[in-house]
Amino acid sequence: MWPPSQGPSRDTPAVLSGGGVLGNHWILVSQRSSELGRVMMASAGELEHKGSDLMSLKPESWTQVSCPCCHSDQVEPLVLIKLGPKITPATKKWIISRIEARETEGGAHLLAHPGEDSDGDIILVAAPRCTLLRVTEELGLCKPYEDGSMAAFSCHDRDSFKNVDNMQEFLTAAERQYIVKYELDSLHVRKDQHVPGMPLSKGLLRARESIFQKLQKMGVVRSIFPLHEKRSLDDLAKNWYTKKQLWGQPLDSINAYFGGPVAFYFSFLDFYTWSLVLPAFLGLVLAFLPGGEPVGGAEAKQEAEEDEEGPSVRGLAVQAVFSMLWSTVVMELWKRRSSSLSYYWGTLQLTERFAEPRPGFHGTMGYSPITGRLEPLFSEWHRKLRIGLVSVPVVGLFLGMVVLGIAGFYSGEALVQGFHAERGSILTAGLLYVPSLVHILYVNVLGSVYSKVALLLTEYENHREESAFQNHHTAKTLLFTFFNYFAILFHIAFFKQDLPLLRKRLSSLLIVTQVIGQCTEVLVPYLVDRFFSSSDKNLQEDDPEVDRIRVQIGLPPFPGLFSEYIELLVQYGYLSLFSCVYPLTAVFLLINNVTEIRTDAFKICRLFQKPFYAPVSSMGVWQAAFEILGFVSVMSNCWLLLLSPRVKHFCLEGGFSSRNALLFAILVEHVLILIKMILAFVIPDEPDWVRRKRDEIEFRSLHALNELKP
Amino acid sequence: MWPPSQGPSRDTPAVLSGGGVLGNHWILVSQRSSELGRVMMASAGELEHKGSDLMSLKPESWTQVSCPCCHSDQVEPLVLIKLGPKITPATKKWIISRIEARETEGGAHLLAHPGEDSDGDIILVAAPRCTLLRVTEELGLCKPYEDGSMAAFSCHDRDSFKNVDNMQEFLTAAERQYIVKYELDSLHVRKDQHVPGMPLSKGLLRARESIFQKLQKMGVVRSIFPLHEKRSLDDLAKNWYTKKQLWGQPLDSINAYFGGPVAFYFSFLDFYTWSLVLPAFLGLVLAFLPGGEPVGGAEAKQEAEEDEEGPSVRGLAVQAVFSMLWSTVVMELWKRRSSSLSYYWGTLQLTERFAEPRPGFHGTMGYSPITGRLEPLFSEWHRKLRIGLVSVPVVGLFLGMVVLGIAGFYSGEALVQGFHAERGSILTAGLLYVPSLVHILYVNVLGSVYSKVALLLTEYENHREESAFQNHHTAKTLLFTFFNYFAILFHIAFFKQDLPLLRKRLSSLLIVTQVIGQCTEVLVPYLVDRFFSSSDKNLQEDDPEVDRIRVQIGLPPFPGLFSEYIELLVQYGYLSLFSCVYPLTAVFLLINNVTEIRTDAFKICRLFQKPFYAPVSSMGVWQAAFEILGFVSVMSNCWLLLLSPRVKHFCLEGGFSSRNALLFAILVEHVLILIKMILAFVIPDEPDWVRRKRDEIEFRSLHALNELKP
Repeated sequence: MWPPSQGPSRDTPAVLSGGGVLGNHWILVSQRSSELGRVMMASAGELEHKGSDLMSLKPESWTQVSCPCCHSDQVEPLVLIKLGPKITPATKKWIISRIEARETEGGAHLLAHPGEDSDGDIILVAAPRCTLLRVTEELGLCKPYEDGSMAAFSCHDRDSFKNVDNMQEFLTAAERQYIVKYELDSLHVRKDQHVPGMPLSKGLLRARESIFQKLQKMGVVRSIFPLHEKRSLDDLAKNWYTKKQLWGQPLDSINAYFGGPVAFYFSFLDFYTWSLVLPAFLGLVLAFLPGGEPVGGAEAKQEAEEDEEGPSVRGLAVQAVFSMLWSTVVMELWKRRSSSLSYYWGTLQLTERFAEPRPGFHGTMGYSPITGRLEPLFSEWHRKLRIGLVSVPVVGLFLGMVVLGIAGFYSGEALVQGFHAERGSILTAGLLYVPSLVHILYVNVLGSVYSKVALLLTEYENHREESAFQNHHTAKTLLFTFFNYFAILFHIAFFKQDLPLLRKRLSSLLIVTQVIGQCTEVLVPYLVDRFFSSSDKNLQEDDPEVDRIRVQIGLPPFPGLFSEYIELLVQYGYLSLFSCVYPLTAVFLLINNVTEIRTDAFKICRLFQKPFYAPVSSMGVWQAAFEILGFVSVMSNCWLLLLSPRVKHFCLEGGFSSRNALLFAILVEHVLILIKMILAFVIPDEPDWVRRKRDEIEFRSLHALNELKP
Repeated sequence: MWPPSQGPSRDTPAVLSGGGVLGNHWILVSQRSSELGRVMMASAGELEHKGSDLMSLKPESWTQVSCPCCHSDQVEPLVLIKLGPKITPATKKWIISRIEARETEGGAHLLAHPGEDSDGDIILVAAPRCTLLRVTEELGLCKPYEDGSMAAFSCHDRDSFKNVDNMQEFLTAAERQYIVKYELDSLHVRKDQHVPGMPLSKGLLRARESIFQKLQKMGVVRSIFPLHEKRSLDDLAKNWYTKKQLWGQPLDSINAYFGGPVAFYFSFLDFYTWSLVLPAFLGLVLAFLPGGEPVGGAEAKQEAEEDEEGPSVRGLAVQAVFSMLWSTVVMELWKRRSSSLSYYWGTLQLTERFAEPRPGFHGTMGYSPITGRLEPLFSEWHRKLRIGLVSVPVVGLFLGMVVLGIAGFYSGEALVQGFHAERGSILTAGLLYVPSLVHILYVNVLGSVYSKVALLLTEYENHREESAFQNHHTAKTLLFTFFNYFAILFHIAFFKQDLPLLRKRLSSLLIVTQVIGQCTEVLVPYLVDRFFSSSDKNLQEDDPEVDRIRVQIGLPPFPGLFSEYIELLVQYGYLSLFSCVYPLTAVFLLINNVTEIRTDAFKICRLFQKPFYAPVSSMGVWQAAFEILGFVSVMSNCWLLLLSPRVKHFCLEGGFSSRNALLFAILVEHVLILIKMILAFVIPDEPDWVRRKRDEIEFRSLHALNELKP
């Protein structure tokens, strides 16, 4: 488990070493960038000592170095705004003025750097200390308090928090960059306004409209992404995927560099891979047990005798019951680990509900009954109505179309086969491939239409919080993807009731997806890396700072963790839903995941722009998906056990009628589900010490409320 | 639904009109008690006007009328402490001194009245305003704020709360009395001490031991109970059970007078009775539908033809599906109503966790990591270990013994019947009754042993909060009682698979329990009332005040709501578990409940001492029990439908094999459970406005914390 003494973010984040020769303004910094970097690594005490020296390094090129209220020793470029082509200097100047204006004037209170020169196509954004601290409080992030525990940060009490003088120590890189994004997102104009330098026909901003969202729609801003920081990234990579040891990832550093969602994904991947050891071991034992029949070579004999394939009845039952209870225990333990991670990463009491609504949120303007701020209001029941009357039926329709596709495929296949049997020729033999091809085409078209529809639906649902938006969107996509993957397997298992076919299909899917997955995830990245690093080398001759930023602009944006998670979920599905059909699944998955960790890590570090990620306190909707799958697996396994020829044989020998065997299976299913529910209820979701911390925090705020009221 | 404008506790609580002639000290008050009562009913403005007049009414007999920090215009006797026989004046004096001592001196800071004279056997306890307000904050009770909303009471901000000058308006009678109990319970000595006036051998109090718990064990204190207040009680009774109209109960007044648990019970009874209207209507329609076969008269034909009895297949299915979905919707709506009630009754954010532990709680002394107070500490995992390794196996053992009892009964019956068939004589015919008698005896003995064991186990589990203790104790008793009631019915339904017997048994149980229940609950109370009121009249000649208190001492203590709740749960069990066997259940229950409300109300008002009840925010474990029953009912109904001869017949006609019918039933069961879970998930447990209030409160305390920290 997580050692509590370890503490959060032990890795030393390094400031991006100056701005390079992005413009002649910045030359001062770039010359001494390495020194600046070194200074940043120094302890706080040392820093104070060198204070006067640092002052002279102040990069004058930043249009505004520090705000009146607080003093920044250095400026760290956090976020890059890439403008579209043909943006007039007037527009750029206006954007910079919005970024820099104080909050009271409706600005974001950030620092901006116009890039190479005033009509270049990038803007670099940094944040002064006061803005960083204000938003830290607004987001409800917890930080180490002077007494060593984590406490929700409060600006009033800033001096009681550790490292509060050094923003690079106090906030993680991911947090600093997210804060910039949060401030940019919440920028809006108070009255309808025209963007300076834009043609009159298209430059209108409506009141309360998110400026950057609209600018992106207009094409003025092409993309906004956080900058990679070479030194931290190299450090991270060294401890992460290039390390020779098999286990262990630098989770704190991942959280610090990439943010919560990425860190939670890799933590879960780690945890889940560990937890596969036990089922893999059991699978091996069952497959090669002296008493039991071997499974590995069973595929060959498959067609010969149905009764002889697969493991023994006892083995089957042990495997099934084990995997059903295992899945619950694993998820419950994960929840506990997840909540400890959340505590260490300071996200135990995020206050997203009370922060600014996400940029796409709209509604009638009014004063929030909770915070008293003027913001768009949108009632919960209205949202529920939209979900119930629009989203649910539309998603249902698409799921129905998946089923329809499968039905169409089967009937098409039967039709073509009948036709081919009637008048067999080369032409009709070619026709045999048509249903498959049509089905693949259909599935792909449906999938891409659905992904657009899911986004539109979720936007229509108008969630106030980003996390709610993400969860609803993920849930929609997830349901469809999962249905797509498993519909055929379920069809084979429950309707065709053809176990040998299921086993064949399952093993080929496992092997094919793993081989393809590993190829695309290992080979392609390797090739890209060669290409990528060489291009890096070519550019290095010029100037490393500019090149690094230019290279990042050229990278594709990170596509999100959805595909990584769904891969895990589908794996988990294979393992838990059909475990008793193919006991070696866990072994394959274990091998797969060990390499998966490295390739995923490499991908996110090297192949994409750095993504923005908000601080989160858990895996969100994915956790629920894994849990639900655990319960579905009980039903599926009980059913598969019942269908298995060995069990049928066993029943016949034992003199059970098929009806009684069925009744027995139902009983077992209900008892197992009951046990799972009791297990889930009995194992607390949080370790005791986390619960105590939470109580402590609640007590403190209750006390504060009572003290403050008069 | 609850009209939000109604506000909490609109009924005017009246102060207990003086103390009567309990002693010659108190004569002053008693003479003008009616005037005092009238003054109490007056508005706050009027009260101020009469202030100088009231001062002269100060009942000097209270050993201490008001504390130095606050001024009380009048003293309202709240709680009576009945001492055991042969208590020396020294002991009594010491007890009074403990009650009156200030908190800093380890006392309860309450007011005490020594009853008739200093060596009498009662102590009357009242509470000064400052203690009432302090504990109100400590318990986390919400009270109406000046802006009209409910807010957690804070002593610092007391003047912003409505009616804070008049404790009779500000707190309900139940709250005032519970606060006295809470203070008495938390009285303890700091060092080992000897109770003055007690023999040395038995008068030792250990440090941190609850004084009153120990005194009750020693026999020094016989009982502690809150006093009835005649005027309020008569008002309540008039609006409650003597009213002619069929529906509606004065729930706010019930909450004010008896406290949360009683009010929640009656609210639920009301809600549940209302919700029976729909199933009763459906039952009537199905039973007497022109197309369907009548059910009412079906019992007569029962033995003749199995196939012809009961409602039609369509009717059965409609009834079953309806009742399964109905139960979820009802419970979800109840949760919403429950949370609104909790808001109005000011218990939305109780802080029991941060208040004093319950008196029986023990552990190693230490500083609580949460509140920082010195108190006994007992770790959560230690408690869980005790629950898992001791409570669960013991409860399981007793449930096993119930099953064993049933098995024994059946085998005994078979044995005796065989014996009787062999050599039939009057003697052996008499033997036929032996198994039943032995079983009844066994069940009763087992039940009474179990009730003691359940209490011991729950005490051994050492819960810190009273509510946790109550919930765990109730859950244990509930499980056993329910098992006892339903084991035989389940046996008939699932093992014997004998539907006609089940129907016969169910209808006789329904009728017998209702007839017996109504007799004991209507007839006995009526007789008692006659006896009770006449004794009241006899005493009235003397002095009403003393008599009223004397009469209350003579009453039995209120046995708690367990038997009332279990009656409802068992009803609900009959209705939902076996609904498709006997469609008219709901009609009988509806009729039963309408009278049940009155008899229960009469019982609690007139036949017992007033009970202490802590403020609560919900029905606690009972809600979970009703919900679980809803899910079990799906399984039971699907199974019963499958067994029903009509469905069997229907299957045979339709050409379904018994295996396919079974598969279909499983499918239906799973789909219904899924729908129930989705319904439970989709219907929010709190109305939007309650959720918003909760958010508002959380935001305020978060804000306060951030403001206060420096």
